Amino acid sequence: MAEARPSEFELIKRYFAPLASDPGSVGLTDDAAVITPRDGHDLVLTKDVLAADIHFFANDAPEAIAAKALRVNLSDLAAKGATPRGYLLGLALPSNWTADWLERFCNALAADQTAYDIKLLGGDTIRSGNGLQVSITAIGELPTGRTVRRSGAKAGDVVFVSGTIGDAAAGLKARLDSGFAAKHNLTAEHEAYILDRYLLPRPRTRLASALQTRASASMDVSDGLLSDCGHMARASNMDFTLELDRIPLSPALLQLKSACQQEYIQCINGGDDYEILATVPADHAEEFLDSASSLNCPVTRIGCVASGSGDVHLNNHGDPVAMSPDDGFRHF
Amino acid sequence: MAEARPSEFELIKRYFAPLASDPGSVGLTDDAAVITPRDGHDLVLTKDVLAADIHFFANDAPEAIAAKALRVNLSDLAAKGATPRGYLLGLALPSNWTADWLERFCNALAADQTAYDIKLLGGDTIRSGNGLQVSITAIGELPTGRTVRRSGAKAGDVVFVSGTIGDAAAGLKARLDSGFAAKHNLTAEHEAYILDRYLLPRPRTRLASALQTRASASMDVSDGLLSDCGHMARASNMDFTLELDRIPLSPALLQLKSACQQEYIQCINGGDDYEILATVPADHAEEFLDSASSLNCPVTRIGCVASGSGDVHLNNHGDPVAMSPDDGFRHF
Repeated sequence: MAEARPSEFELIKRYFAPLASDPGSVGLTDDAAVITPRDGHDLVLTKDVLAADIHFFANDAPEAIAAKALRVNLSDLAAKGATPRGYLLGLALPSNWTADWLERFCNALAADQTAYDIKLLGGDTIRSGNGLQVSITAIGELPTGRTVRRSGAKAGDVVFVSGTIGDAAAGLKARLDSGFAAKHNLTAEHEAYILDRYLLPRPRTRLASALQTRASASMDVSDGLLSDCGHMARASNMDFTLELDRIPLSPALLQLKSACQQEYIQCINGGDDYEILATVPADHAEEFLDSASSLNCPVTRIGCVASGSGDVHLNNHGDPVAMSPDDGFRHF
Repeated sequence: MAEARPSEFELIKRYFAPLASDPGSVGLTDDAAVITPRDGHDLVLTKDVLAADIHFFANDAPEAIAAKALRVNLSDLAAKGATPRGYLLGLALPSNWTADWLERFCNALAADQTAYDIKLLGGDTIRSGNGLQVSITAIGELPTGRTVRRSGAKAGDVVFVSGTIGDAAAGLKARLDSGFAAKHNLTAEHEAYILDRYLLPRPRTRLASALQTRASASMDVSDGLLSDCGHMARASNMDFTLELDRIPLSPALLQLKSACQQEYIQCINGGDDYEILATVPADHAEEFLDSASSLNCPVTRIGCVASGSGDVHLNNHGDPVAMSPDDGFRHF
């Protein structure tokens, strides 16, 4: 761009300070933010780093990159049962950034701040020798001691998952192969749906309160449903049995399943779903279903927990099937 | 390296979990950490992102990179008067990382965790398309409402700075030009001293308690002494007058000053000092000096604050001199 490069102070004033309306951020005019949980509450902290051409495409719209970077963190907070409070933004800008790009990026953050009731607290902006990197630390709040861990699943619990599974992974396949949709008889509407689900996670923040009161264990599905079930099973030292045929699928994934079993299997363990995987004691399962439904965030019963040593067993229409729980999408 | 690349889970278990002994981090086995300030305390959060060949040299020892990344954040906490509690680590590893490199990096973090009484709470590790980036969010604690801001300087306050100024900037010059020391008649001891001061910040964490009880405003010197004075003067809407001849100098910088006025001036506003710049009401100045001395973290009186509109005036041996307060080292 022709105009002179603004200093970091000018960047803060122009782009970031308008996002920082929490008093603890003092308008980003200081070196640190101050935050205090409400009486009787804990703070929950999570951090995700996203890099161009690993977690998003460098030519994705800046709005989508901003939303994804913030939302993957909000998904972690929701899974722990926490309500968003604030976030710190680390931005490594490539040398070819433009004012227009940054304005669109920040406008998208502003829109998500309103949608998810969270505010910018602080951060750091640097030049990146190469691609864009976005590092966000998000902070949530919940009543003291009520954080929902991965490790709390107990024998007899019911396994639930929110939303539908596999759409984002299918969307990535469609993004990488323009013939993917046609090959598997997906409609234009199916294709648009999965592409959007890859681009824009929908963190299930509305489910946080129900998780906090009902769930024995919870995490978000980011590595892949089976992989993440494996993580939860090992953390809880319990065996999980999942009913493959009960995994909730969108119309697009139902079509993919009927067109190509292999692609469907890859997608349901493909990752980037940002849905909630939770276990709930059997005698709370109906209440959890009802709560989730009334929160407009439906969940589906997909399995059960039994004493064991951290294994995941799979059934399909009642018959055991074999599949590696580690066959997931690895971000690293 | 010949061995197979470990997964992120293996990395966490092998390298990072041993750093995470705080119960709130649950050994990094979950997606989020939990932290609660002690009763009557606030949390202070700061975030700095460091990139190879911008904030450090890619071929610096991993121990030095780890220490710098953590310490620049500890310096911010100290300046706010806060005691370190924990940190989240975002690590973007270049494709040619080795197990040996990461082990040395983590060992250095472990050493600094002991030295500064801080623990790893969580984080994220990704592949970096190119150079190494380290993004740290550090969390400190202090009594509610006691955070020391940049904006609190008042007319009549005394301006103090800790340690000595300009060494890191001179160290960077020596690092970039192997003839720098000889050109300015610096001894081998001088050269080693400034190289080390560039490589390894010494965050003034011991000064936090004295700042919390005595200082009206405080920040760390990272952009350059005059630039940072300008930031504090504008945030406080006060004029600062600094006595250039009172700026504390190491033997190496005293030699540089006598050898080359221009290099010396560049260095005292060169940045990366990670010393504390603070203002203290005149009637607490002696107590602050005494406290700092007893904390083994000496401070020097370098100027005063007067009513004004955010300007920095400079005197040298009593005579006004001109210099742009914005002539500092810019990280961006």
